[in-house]
Amino acid sequence: MTVADCMRTMTKGEKPVDERLKKQLAFILEADKTKNVFRQTHLSGHGRRENDAEHSWHTALMAYLLGEYANERIDVARVMLMCIVHDIVEIDAGDTYAYDADGLSTQKAREDAAKMRIFSLLPEDQANELISVFNEFEANETADARFAHAMDNLQPLLLNDSNGGGDWKAHGVTAEQVYGRQRITALGSEKLFAVADGIIRENIGKGNLPESGGSDASDNKKKTHARRKNSV
Amino acid sequence: MTVADCMRTMTKGEKPVDERLKKQLAFILEADKTKNVFRQTHLSGHGRRENDAEHSWHTALMAYLLGEYANERIDVARVMLMCIVHDIVEIDAGDTYAYDADGLSTQKAREDAAKMRIFSLLPEDQANELISVFNEFEANETADARFAHAMDNLQPLLLNDSNGGGDWKAHGVTAEQVYGRQRITALGSEKLFAVADGIIRENIGKGNLPESGGSDASDNKKKTHARRKNSV
Repeated sequence: MTVADCMRTMTKGEKPVDERLKKQLAFILEADKTKNVFRQTHLSGHGRRENDAEHSWHTALMAYLLGEYANERIDVARVMLMCIVHDIVEIDAGDTYAYDADGLSTQKAREDAAKMRIFSLLPEDQANELISVFNEFEANETADARFAHAMDNLQPLLLNDSNGGGDWKAHGVTAEQVYGRQRITALGSEKLFAVADGIIRENIGKGNLPESGGSDASDNKKKTHARRKNSV
Repeated sequence: MTVADCMRTMTKGEKPVDERLKKQLAFILEADKTKNVFRQTHLSGHGRRENDAEHSWHTALMAYLLGEYANERIDVARVMLMCIVHDIVEIDAGDTYAYDADGLSTQKAREDAAKMRIFSLLPEDQANELISVFNEFEANETADARFAHAMDNLQPLLLNDSNGGGDWKAHGVTAEQVYGRQRITALGSEKLFAVADGIIRENIGKGNLPESGGSDASDNKKKTHARRKNSV
């Protein structure tokens, strides 16, 4: 038995560790509810609406596979973790619809409250760790956060494109609005923004996406500027 | 611009990189189908059946939070990746039901064929990487694989326990069978096996789980020995 093994046995044999484990298991069970938060995006093959847990899984997989296209040096494992935890707050805060101006005005306050309640189920060190990862994602000021955002934006674009732009059509979304969102992708990856740009142009060409939408589109545009998430 | 930036620009400006990206995007879209593979486990709160993508997300989150309990030194990021990719083959192979003896006898062949078709959508280096990660998980001979299996086993146990053992009752599963499965958890983490053991004992006490089930249980036990996955 190595010294490290001895220390592990000593530490884990004591009561505080069991309290620690109980908290971790309570959080893990609470996190299960992420699977009940449904987004506006539909699965490929004209499927049902996607939920936050499977969306997060998809973005983590994408981060691993597309990390080579990041504008800056990133820590892929940290980006994957960011992808995995970034939507857990929506258990309480709900998925704020991209064009819901009222919802958007309260989104930050709702997500902050959710963040404190949900992550605080964990032992203090892990709660602080995940709150820090979540805050970093939201602030979008580091290379890792910018690449995680690129994944978060590109993923629904790929699904929606595969469905002939069904989600855009259903919500009367314009290319101008989609560009407003995908410009954030460019901060994480110019290369992947070029992919998004190609998809948007192709869908304009196919008539799936009007370039702009007159006065209605102008209203939507204002709302789009305020929003941060859950683009279709 | 650094030398690394120059090299990146040079490499990415060439046609072969676009072919590479196309393959990556094709795989990412194919992987979306993981969300349509439903398991026997139900979500907490007596919810619907869980799908492979959200199950994989949950196990990756658990790996990050519970990694400290691994019997051996593990690479948590690698375990998370293993959790994320371990069920993608079920897009073709389907979820093999825990007590389907016929299904189990062909499971390995079906999953091997699926593995080749699906991962080969990726550029060769990434295909080889993910096949290698998947093979390592299946072989269960490394510390990382053993801990990933512990997550894969503990996760449905936690959900099923939260639902009063509903999945066990629906399928007439016995404690003997559940132990058969959770002993694999012990290979990855003795500490987490103790959690599983506590849950099993508690459910026996509550009458949610018969200790053994006579001749029927004996039949089931044989089948359980042959199976590798998707325990309830």
